[in-house]
Amino acid sequence: MSEKKLDLNALRMLTYGLYVVTSHFDDKLNGLICNAAIQVAQNPTRIAICINKTELTHEYIMHSSEFALSILDESTPMTFIGLFGFKSGRDIDKLSHVAFKKVVTGCPIVTENSLAALEAKVSNQVDVGSHTLFIGDIISTEILKEGKPLTYAFYHEHLKGKTPEKAPTYIKEEKQRRHEEKKD
Amino acid sequence: MSEKKLDLNALRMLTYGLYVVTSHFDDKLNGLICNAAIQVAQNPTRIAICINKTELTHEYIMHSSEFALSILDESTPMTFIGLFGFKSGRDIDKLSHVAFKKVVTGCPIVTENSLAALEAKVSNQVDVGSHTLFIGDIISTEILKEGKPLTYAFYHEHLKGKTPEKAPTYIKEEKQRRHEEKKD
Repeated sequence: MSEKKLDLNALRMLTYGLYVVTSHFDDKLNGLICNAAIQVAQNPTRIAICINKTELTHEYIMHSSEFALSILDESTPMTFIGLFGFKSGRDIDKLSHVAFKKVVTGCPIVTENSLAALEAKVSNQVDVGSHTLFIGDIISTEILKEGKPLTYAFYHEHLKGKTPEKAPTYIKEEKQRRHEEKKD
Repeated sequence: MSEKKLDLNALRMLTYGLYVVTSHFDDKLNGLICNAAIQVAQNPTRIAICINKTELTHEYIMHSSEFALSILDESTPMTFIGLFGFKSGRDIDKLSHVAFKKVVTGCPIVTENSLAALEAKVSNQVDVGSHTLFIGDIISTEILKEGKPLTYAFYHEHLKGKTPEKAPTYIKEEKQRRHEEKKD
């Protein structure tokens, strides 16, 4: 192995929010939980989101070059996060289980458990290995309700949430630990 | 104006941490406060950071293709944030005012007020308008101390911090408001 082993615990201290990223493939809709999203420019107003290449939503964004992002409220229940974060749109129609509306691009924004939402047209995409970084020009934003944004730290500490294997922040040891727990 | 006016308050609900991003130009060192940093891939372990093109640290990263990132502790005092966030390395030698050490690349990591640090070699860079998004392969990480990471929300709510104009998240209204306050 040419690469020196990194202590990935250092990366756990990076701060993230928790969002539902959605897209469409013609009339089909899908979405997933995403923690890696940042505003990257003021002018034009641009956002970058990071999506695992194996995800159905990745396929939809590649096809439509459009995505929306709904910013989750801290009070979001685990069942809702589980629907978007641990189930696949290849198996179920996720959007049929939640309140949503279509915005200008045809992407859905999730109107329950969300404080605000935005939609964007992809201006650039970067292959970063396991994931694609989509950079989008924000074309509309919407405030949905007052509240405190759900953070990745809150999700782990208070909701005892796990990191799905497809997240950029997933650490293999978590998997190993879970396997060990199962064995006991 | 072809672009519909966006309500940028929606974007204020995105979650960020607060970091010192550093780089070097041969033997010269500099750093700045950055909020826009996310891990973007597991394999290889990659990070993306967003830096304003007018910053001296931007010039250093363009030259060296290397950067480091120190993850700040919630207890970081405003004087420290002010040094890296509101002063220019063109006027003062910022690193001479803090405890730091050089890591493998020659970039400095800040050892005071930091929980952990990493360094990376730029594998890709994307011009996103006002800013450049640097994508880096992480080559070393280090845990410095226990603590709670400083978040952008904490900085605004508890430290009453302002957003510098060069941040991707800067909103013009803040400037207007400050001008109005001055007039009164």
